[in-house]
Amino acid sequence: MTNDDINGLLPHVEALMNALCTREPGKLQDIVSEHFYAGGSRVRARLALEAGLALGLSKSISVALAGGCELLHNASLVHDDLQDRDEMRRNAPSMWAAHGEDVAICGGDLMLSAAYAAMAQAGPHAVQLITHAHRRVAEVIEGQCQDLRLGGHCADAQAYERVAAAKSGPLLALPIELALIAAGKAPLVDAARRAATLFALAYQMLDDLADAGHDATNGSLNAVAVHATLGMADPRESVRRTALARLEAFELAARELPAGIAQTLVLRAQAIKHALGAQLEPA
Amino acid sequence: MTNDDINGLLPHVEALMNALCTREPGKLQDIVSEHFYAGGSRVRARLALEAGLALGLSKSISVALAGGCELLHNASLVHDDLQDRDEMRRNAPSMWAAHGEDVAICGGDLMLSAAYAAMAQAGPHAVQLITHAHRRVAEVIEGQCQDLRLGGHCADAQAYERVAAAKSGPLLALPIELALIAAGKAPLVDAARRAATLFALAYQMLDDLADAGHDATNGSLNAVAVHATLGMADPRESVRRTALARLEAFELAARELPAGIAQTLVLRAQAIKHALGAQLEPA
Repeated sequence: MTNDDINGLLPHVEALMNALCTREPGKLQDIVSEHFYAGGSRVRARLALEAGLALGLSKSISVALAGGCELLHNASLVHDDLQDRDEMRRNAPSMWAAHGEDVAICGGDLMLSAAYAAMAQAGPHAVQLITHAHRRVAEVIEGQCQDLRLGGHCADAQAYERVAAAKSGPLLALPIELALIAAGKAPLVDAARRAATLFALAYQMLDDLADAGHDATNGSLNAVAVHATLGMADPRESVRRTALARLEAFELAARELPAGIAQTLVLRAQAIKHALGAQLEPA
Repeated sequence: MTNDDINGLLPHVEALMNALCTREPGKLQDIVSEHFYAGGSRVRARLALEAGLALGLSKSISVALAGGCELLHNASLVHDDLQDRDEMRRNAPSMWAAHGEDVAICGGDLMLSAAYAAMAQAGPHAVQLITHAHRRVAEVIEGQCQDLRLGGHCADAQAYERVAAAKSGPLLALPIELALIAAGKAPLVDAARRAATLFALAYQMLDDLADAGHDATNGSLNAVAVHATLGMADPRESVRRTALARLEAFELAARELPAGIAQTLVLRAQAIKHALGAQLEPA
């Protein structure tokens, strides 16, 4: 399994996502296609494909898992942008900003539904995969709800990490978890989840360092504000050190997974370390 | 299969819906449980149970289909209420009115995701059922989008019926369609769909007759306004006659289905006829 294999399969993932969201001719399908066309990192598709290929799953099952996970992630982006009033996504207006709130609700719903239709194509373990995916989606939704409720009023680093982990960990772990389940290796799901959650925390903290000013204005949950409320002398440095500690723990956790799995995260963890180093400079 | 059998299974459907939406402890699960507790007609659960039992499906499969269809329907109600700014549902504030827009988006998402987890429990045809359900959900979402776009500006009775049919037909047909697919009778799906769509049109027109004033104020799509724009001398009477014609066509279509299926709709069709008769009186 090489990077070329993954790059070769990504167009099939895009085709599946589009096919499942454009069965009904109408304006919404054009908007959703436009959203997919705008791209994105497709980290979750890459994680599913690399895990699927490393575990010996067929290409069609790997593509179905990748498509399902990306559809779930994109559904959550579209609804989160609306809830958080984020006007930009991928250097363009977010769906609600460009087409209105009603369209964004419908667009996210369509992607969420399509995700399960994608997973239904994932071979003999499809039912187990769908049941597992719903459990993780429920965690993410509860995390998003808690995040919206907490907003800028959080003075508890553990509560912050619980919400941040619930909000982004499950959908980042899911591609690896589903590939493990499809390959009959369900006992490794917990290790995948641990690794992905630690990565998600570090990533969120880096994001919070970059967005501290913006989040303070909007009253959004942000690690820098939490560490400031806790009385840290240098809250930015304290967040940076915490993020580095989570990355180190991530690297240990990732080693518990079979070879070739979560490599996309391992590479990105190095980039985050680098970016966190740069945060030593005054912002 | 008697009405007592169905009433006996409904608590199992409620239990399944609750179980799938309350796996994550948190505030959202309480709100969603409260929404279910407020009740509703559970027409879609009844349709799935009566079709399932008539077709010889097991109780557990019938309950899974009923729970899945009710979860989809309730997800659409929660998001539609938000989009249409309807403040009341089942004699209580709707979810967005009671708990805010963000919670309503999350609550609808949770029910939509849970619906597929319910269908995953529907036995050997689960994958086919999920694939079919997504197709119908995509139709409903496109219908809702078109409805929101058309609003009060529609001067075409065919376009009105197309949107009204797309908006409520698929989720009303779905319980019967899924039971037929689960029983290996997929060729009858088209007949089920035809019958449910005709019923949905008549039901929507009765609703429009009752809401004509309110919809005119809100600029919502309404059959009375469409018939008025078309230059009908008595638009209410014209809508009433059209609804009665759709009900007659429904009754013919329902006879094409195996005995015992869609009885819930046949009984309700008689009630709608009665209510349409009452609409002869000045509103």
